[in-house]
Amino acid sequence: MSGNNEVPGRTVVAKASMILDAFAGNRVSLSLSDLSRATGLPSSTVHRIAGELVDWGGLERTSDGDYTVGIRLWEIAARSRRSYGLRETAMPFLHGLFDLTRQHVQLAVLDGADALLIEKISAAHAVGTIGRVGGRLPLHASAVGKALLASSSPEVQERILARQLLAYTPSTLTSARVLRRELAETRRRGFALANEEMSIGAVSCAAPITVPGQEVVAAISVVMPAGEAPPHKWSPAVCGAGFGIARALSQHQPQPLISAQLTGT
Amino acid sequence: MSGNNEVPGRTVVAKASMILDAFAGNRVSLSLSDLSRATGLPSSTVHRIAGELVDWGGLERTSDGDYTVGIRLWEIAARSRRSYGLRETAMPFLHGLFDLTRQHVQLAVLDGADALLIEKISAAHAVGTIGRVGGRLPLHASAVGKALLASSSPEVQERILARQLLAYTPSTLTSARVLRRELAETRRRGFALANEEMSIGAVSCAAPITVPGQEVVAAISVVMPAGEAPPHKWSPAVCGAGFGIARALSQHQPQPLISAQLTGT
Repeated sequence: MSGNNEVPGRTVVAKASMILDAFAGNRVSLSLSDLSRATGLPSSTVHRIAGELVDWGGLERTSDGDYTVGIRLWEIAARSRRSYGLRETAMPFLHGLFDLTRQHVQLAVLDGADALLIEKISAAHAVGTIGRVGGRLPLHASAVGKALLASSSPEVQERILARQLLAYTPSTLTSARVLRRELAETRRRGFALANEEMSIGAVSCAAPITVPGQEVVAAISVVMPAGEAPPHKWSPAVCGAGFGIARALSQHQPQPLISAQLTGT
Repeated sequence: MSGNNEVPGRTVVAKASMILDAFAGNRVSLSLSDLSRATGLPSSTVHRIAGELVDWGGLERTSDGDYTVGIRLWEIAARSRRSYGLRETAMPFLHGLFDLTRQHVQLAVLDGADALLIEKISAAHAVGTIGRVGGRLPLHASAVGKALLASSSPEVQERILARQLLAYTPSTLTSARVLRRELAETRRRGFALANEEMSIGAVSCAAPITVPGQEVVAAISVVMPAGEAPPHKWSPAVCGAGFGIARALSQHQPQPLISAQLTGT
């Protein structure tokens, strides 16, 4: 199907996807040989396809000649239903929660086996955390992850519970039996807690955002320093924000994006 | 080069790019025939390539069977240098300006002939504006656009001045001569103003963010209701934030994105 030097059976679109996927890791720019290594594709193939992605604007070249994600990809991605509609609706609630708490406020969606951070507002002095916008947190070790998991279908829950539950700190729940009990407790009380289970020194409280009949399952959380207050300190405010966002999502669809039309070109 | 039913000479990557580009417009989801019309590609080609993009996660299907931008694209795009590094560095300054003003605070970059909005923080009661994150504003009619244009190379400025300058309100500057004088004034005083030139009822003040030796040209603005105060009311704070972000950008590169590694899978 393809040349002797190529990964057999891959289409050009699949190869372009593999090149873009290489940027989902922890580095902002990658060289041609980095991309060849990450994708398993020959340098000549990467060079040709990455060049076409640069022509389009999905990738850009740095001054060093490396490749980096282009602003065109970001612009299109900002139209993603799960980031755009959810984010636009949730932002006033996130800011309200931030004004109240002056801690980290996070918005995440369930994606595969992770919580994907859609938005994060942080005070300059807030406790160190590892989550970043566009980054992922494990479902079993973060409050936002446990809120998402507790609101998911039994099939999704069992799929995660069947995996190896990695320990990030000595407090991470690594037993499926203990985690299953914790998820039941999360559903009962309506919010999830994490007590230094993801990062030493950080505790958090998260509420699910679920809208009957809509596919988006999201969660909102506040992350604060351990020892300053119990993890559930802000739970009424977090739950209130979660209900508010869910109600707003169920009542209106976001406005169409009109600004792209404005320049008239 | 390709079949008789295809746009001649387009590679598969170019066709996939055209399909993704169709989502940069004003609609969040598009049908197969919408995509065929927007790209000029036959339905069969769109169906095949869009299907591969769905398999990857760059597109998703809605419950209606339409196509929409997938969360995978958003996740990769969050690594864009121009959104990620700039946004992470600028956020504390944006929040500071928002706390001070309680108006819209915007962060934009120059992209082609437009200002592309990277971030926006809005108070619930703030004046109605048309800019959204991922949306575009014209360079000649918005404060953020005029700040970007005034800081651009003479070649970029002349390219924009040579275009037709569309009127969005009766106050929009549509004369190249007047706009050239305004850009000189913007450089002299260090900030740009827009007085109901983009939206009736909204005035704004913007400062450029420029770092010698770096490619990013960005600008920060405050948008507030006309009549409440003169457009330059917040200019010292906006300029201070612009200088602060530029200094922070020149001093450090953003941390690598570590969270993608966390789940260990």
